[in-house]
Amino acid sequence: MFTSRMDDALTEARAAATRGEVPVGAVLCDPAGRVVAADGNRTRELSDPTAHAEILVIRTACAAVGSERLPGYRLWVTLEPCPMCAAAIAAARIAVLYYGAPDPRMGGVAHGARVFDHPQCHHRPEVYEGLAADAAQSLLRGFFAARR
Amino acid sequence: MFTSRMDDALTEARAAATRGEVPVGAVLCDPAGRVVAADGNRTRELSDPTAHAEILVIRTACAAVGSERLPGYRLWVTLEPCPMCAAAIAAARIAVLYYGAPDPRMGGVAHGARVFDHPQCHHRPEVYEGLAADAAQSLLRGFFAARR
Repeated sequence: MFTSRMDDALTEARAAATRGEVPVGAVLCDPAGRVVAADGNRTRELSDPTAHAEILVIRTACAAVGSERLPGYRLWVTLEPCPMCAAAIAAARIAVLYYGAPDPRMGGVAHGARVFDHPQCHHRPEVYEGLAADAAQSLLRGFFAARR
Repeated sequence: MFTSRMDDALTEARAAATRGEVPVGAVLCDPAGRVVAADGNRTRELSDPTAHAEILVIRTACAAVGSERLPGYRLWVTLEPCPMCAAAIAAARIAVLYYGAPDPRMGGVAHGARVFDHPQCHHRPEVYEGLAADAAQSLLRGFFAARR
């Protein structure tokens, strides 16, 4: 049995918003279901265009286990990953990806590049979409509305 | 006038091979043509599946200038970027991408995900393919042949 970590991912997304970052959060669990990393976007804080929530938790977990790969790990993200993050998820061999809101504007899983749907992608996680999608979506809408 | 930095990128690729990493190298130049970062793959050394040569030089240069974006910068890479790196190149707003060998197996620019060719990609660099492709290709072939 696995506990959904989408609430924790939403907490990370809210924390990102308070830092002035695009509110996306991610939580990574090991095969036993333990949370091994949780973070939100930090691209502005770190001046790093690759510092999306997904990349940060993958890097943290890989460093902790001393491996480039995380077989059996499960990742919760509040928003559909972009192509960069989708390809990193595949490279890390993450077993299951749960994401909240679809992202027609920047997404790379169900939209655009559809990174997992090509023979050049050598690992496709199980993908579950739409968990707490409304909460994730309204966080994003509120964030962008406030900046206009 | 811009000097090709593909020879320097090949030097980084060779150095990666000596470290036991997949031999791919990258060099990033600022708008004035100065080399601001040069590196090769370090995914094994760093236990980081995102530590491709392109990502490493982008992160280094962004940290140095204190910005998520590198407008006017030019990137030389010995191999066609994967979807992760292509999306990072777009996110960093890099102006020009020069790459050596095409990568039908893992590439995400001219193959598979074709990251730049979707409306979800909000910046497409100028792309030049095939510089010193034979040298880059033979480095890769030698590396994988030696490991079989």
